[in-house]
Amino acid sequence: MRPPVYYELIKASSEGMARRGRLHTPHGTIETPVFMPVGTQATVKTLSPEEVAGMGAGILLSNTYHLHLRPGEDIVRDAGGLHRFMNWQGAILTDSGGFQVFSLSALRKITEEGVAFRSHLSGEPLFMGPEESMAVQNALGSDIMMAFDECPPFPADRDYLTQSLLRTTRWAKRCIAAHKNPDRQALFGIVQGGMEHDLRKLSAEQLVELDLPGYAVGGLSVGEPKPLMYEVLEYTTPLLPKDKARYLMGVGSPDDLFEGVLRGVDMFDCVLPTRIARNGTVFTSKGKLVVRNAQYARDFAPLDDACDCYTCKNYSRAYIRHLIKADETFGIRLTSYHNVYFLIKLMEKIRQAIETDTLLSFKRSFYEAYGYEN
Amino acid sequence: MRPPVYYELIKASSEGMARRGRLHTPHGTIETPVFMPVGTQATVKTLSPEEVAGMGAGILLSNTYHLHLRPGEDIVRDAGGLHRFMNWQGAILTDSGGFQVFSLSALRKITEEGVAFRSHLSGEPLFMGPEESMAVQNALGSDIMMAFDECPPFPADRDYLTQSLLRTTRWAKRCIAAHKNPDRQALFGIVQGGMEHDLRKLSAEQLVELDLPGYAVGGLSVGEPKPLMYEVLEYTTPLLPKDKARYLMGVGSPDDLFEGVLRGVDMFDCVLPTRIARNGTVFTSKGKLVVRNAQYARDFAPLDDACDCYTCKNYSRAYIRHLIKADETFGIRLTSYHNVYFLIKLMEKIRQAIETDTLLSFKRSFYEAYGYEN
Repeated sequence: MRPPVYYELIKASSEGMARRGRLHTPHGTIETPVFMPVGTQATVKTLSPEEVAGMGAGILLSNTYHLHLRPGEDIVRDAGGLHRFMNWQGAILTDSGGFQVFSLSALRKITEEGVAFRSHLSGEPLFMGPEESMAVQNALGSDIMMAFDECPPFPADRDYLTQSLLRTTRWAKRCIAAHKNPDRQALFGIVQGGMEHDLRKLSAEQLVELDLPGYAVGGLSVGEPKPLMYEVLEYTTPLLPKDKARYLMGVGSPDDLFEGVLRGVDMFDCVLPTRIARNGTVFTSKGKLVVRNAQYARDFAPLDDACDCYTCKNYSRAYIRHLIKADETFGIRLTSYHNVYFLIKLMEKIRQAIETDTLLSFKRSFYEAYGYEN
Repeated sequence: MRPPVYYELIKASSEGMARRGRLHTPHGTIETPVFMPVGTQATVKTLSPEEVAGMGAGILLSNTYHLHLRPGEDIVRDAGGLHRFMNWQGAILTDSGGFQVFSLSALRKITEEGVAFRSHLSGEPLFMGPEESMAVQNALGSDIMMAFDECPPFPADRDYLTQSLLRTTRWAKRCIAAHKNPDRQALFGIVQGGMEHDLRKLSAEQLVELDLPGYAVGGLSVGEPKPLMYEVLEYTTPLLPKDKARYLMGVGSPDDLFEGVLRGVDMFDCVLPTRIARNGTVFTSKGKLVVRNAQYARDFAPLDDACDCYTCKNYSRAYIRHLIKADETFGIRLTSYHNVYFLIKLMEKIRQAIETDTLLSFKRSFYEAYGYEN
C-alpha cells in the first residue's frame, strides 16, 4: 500500500539537479517544485483561503508551536482538524515546532527527552519532545508532519553538530513510533549536520534508512552566507533518494528559489512575501519596490506592470501607498496578495522552464531584470 | 434636463411614513431605503470593493475631510477620481467635511467665511468653507456631494441654533455657486435646527426653496436620546418634498434603521458595522455577540445560524475568536464582512416588507428576536 503522501518524479532535468515532479497528498496533487505560502496561525496573513487557492497554491504550511499555544490543538481537533478549522481544501504541511521552541521561546533547556521552554505569549512553562510534537500534529491533522529535530545555530562546532544530528535521528525514530495516523498523515525527516559534508552524509544515511516519504534539508537559512547554503544543498540533496520529496525549510526569496531548484529541491516555504508586504515592500519583475515611499504618492502605475494579479489589474501604487500610510488593512491585503502571487507564479514559470530545458536561460533573464548578480 | 441624481418614489406605505423608491445616479440605480457602507479613507475597512458590491451594496460613503488631509484630493483627481482610485464601480456619496472639521480637528474657529482648524494628523493649520468643500468634492468626483453645513452640538440654545441654521442656508447657497460639475455630481442640502420644531421648519423651507435633489436631516445622532431623534425625524421629514431623497447621516444600528424608515428616511450610513467588527462584536438575528469572549473558544457554530454570508457559511465562532485573539487581520475581515452584510440584508428585507405592507410585523418579530423592546 502506498503511503498517504508520496513523490512522483516526472523529469530529471539536465540543468543542474532541477527536477519536475508531483507530490500526491490526501488533499490533492501538488506540482513540484512548489512554493508553499505560510499560514502560521491557521491563516495566510490578511488573505482568504479562496484567494490563496485562486493563485494556484495547493499546499500551505502552518506552525505547530503557534497552534499548540493558541488556540490549542484540542480546539483544532474538535473543530474537525486544521483543514476544516481554517476552511482550506488543499494540503497542509505542519512543522515540528522545534524551530520555534528554539528561536521564539524563552529559557529553553534541551535534554534527550525533549525541550523544556516557556511560552513567548504567557511565560507558562511547557515541554515538547518528539512524542508531544507528534501528538499535536496528529491532532491538527496535517497531510505532512515534520519530525521533531534540533536545529543547531550557525556557527556551531563539529562535536555539537554531531551529537545534535545523532539525537535528531533518535528523535525521528521516536516520532515514527509515536505517530498515530500513518494511514492519513505522512512524516518527513529532517537532515541536519550543519555546514559539514561528512556530518550531512551521516545524518542523511541514518534518516534514509527510516524510509520516510520525504526529507527536509534542515539547519539552513540560520544566518550562514548564501553561497554556503547553496554549497551545503549541492552536496546534501544527492544523498537523498530520487523518489522522495526534498524540502528546504524557511526559504523563499526569488534567488533562493532558483538556486534551490537547481540543487534538487522540490518544496519551499517562507513568510517573506507576507512579512515584507506588511512593511509596504513588494516583489516586482524589476526587483523589490517599497511602495510606501514618497516617490509613489502620484504614481498611478500598478505595482508591477508585468504582473496580472488582482492587485496589479485594479490598483495603483498611489492608492496602495495611501492605504498603507493611512493604516488601512486593505493596503497590506493588496501587497500580501501580490507578493504571494508573485512567488507562486515564479515557481510556475520555473516548472515550465524545467519542462522545456530553459531554466538556466530563464534564471539569467530573471536575474538581469530583477537586479541580481548573474 | 434631469439632474445627475434624482429620486423616484415607487410606493408610499401606509405603515408610518415608510416609502420604497429608487435613487438614480451616474453610477447605477439604488433601491431605497438603503444602507450605505462607509469607506472613510477610500476603502471600506478590511473589505475589497468586490466583496462590498457582492453583498448588494450599490453606494458607499467616503469622507471629504479625511481624503483632503490624506492623500489629498489632487492625487485622487489625478488618479481619475475616487471611483477609479479605489476601484469602486458603484455610486459614491461624500460628506462635506464639516462634521469632521468640528469633531476631529483641533482649535477650530468658525466664522461666516468658514472654519479654520488644525489637522488632527499633522497639526497643520487649515481652512474649509463652502467653496473649499465643493472644490474637494468636485475633485473627488462623487455622485452625491453634501453641502458644507454647521452641525451644532447637543444641547444648544435656540439663539445659537437659529444663527447656525441661517448660516447653513447661506453656506448652501455658496455651495451651489461654487459647484463646478452640476452636470455629473448632485448636491444635497442639510436641514438643521436642533431639536426645535419651528427651527427645523425654517431650515427646511429655506433649503427646499433651493430645489436640491436630496436633503439630509442633519444635527441628529449627536448625543441626544434616541426617542428625541425619532421625534425630530417625525416632524422634519414631512417638511421635505416627497419627490426628493431623504438622508439620515451617521445612523445605522438595526433599531435606528427601522425607526428611520418608518419616519420617511431613504438613506442611512454608519461606521458601526466595521467599527464593532474590529472589537470582535457582531450583529446576529438574536442580538449582538462578542465573539472574542472566552465562552466562544470551543463554539463551532457560525456567528449567526440564520445568516448565509461568506463568513457564516465557512467559519466558526471558535476560528474567528482565535484569529482575533491572535491579532490576525483575517478575523476582522470576517467580522466586518458579516456585519456589513447583516445591515445590507436587513435593509433588503425592510424594502420587501414595505412592498408587502408587512413592515410593522417584520419590525416586531425582528425586535423580539434581537432583544429590543417593542
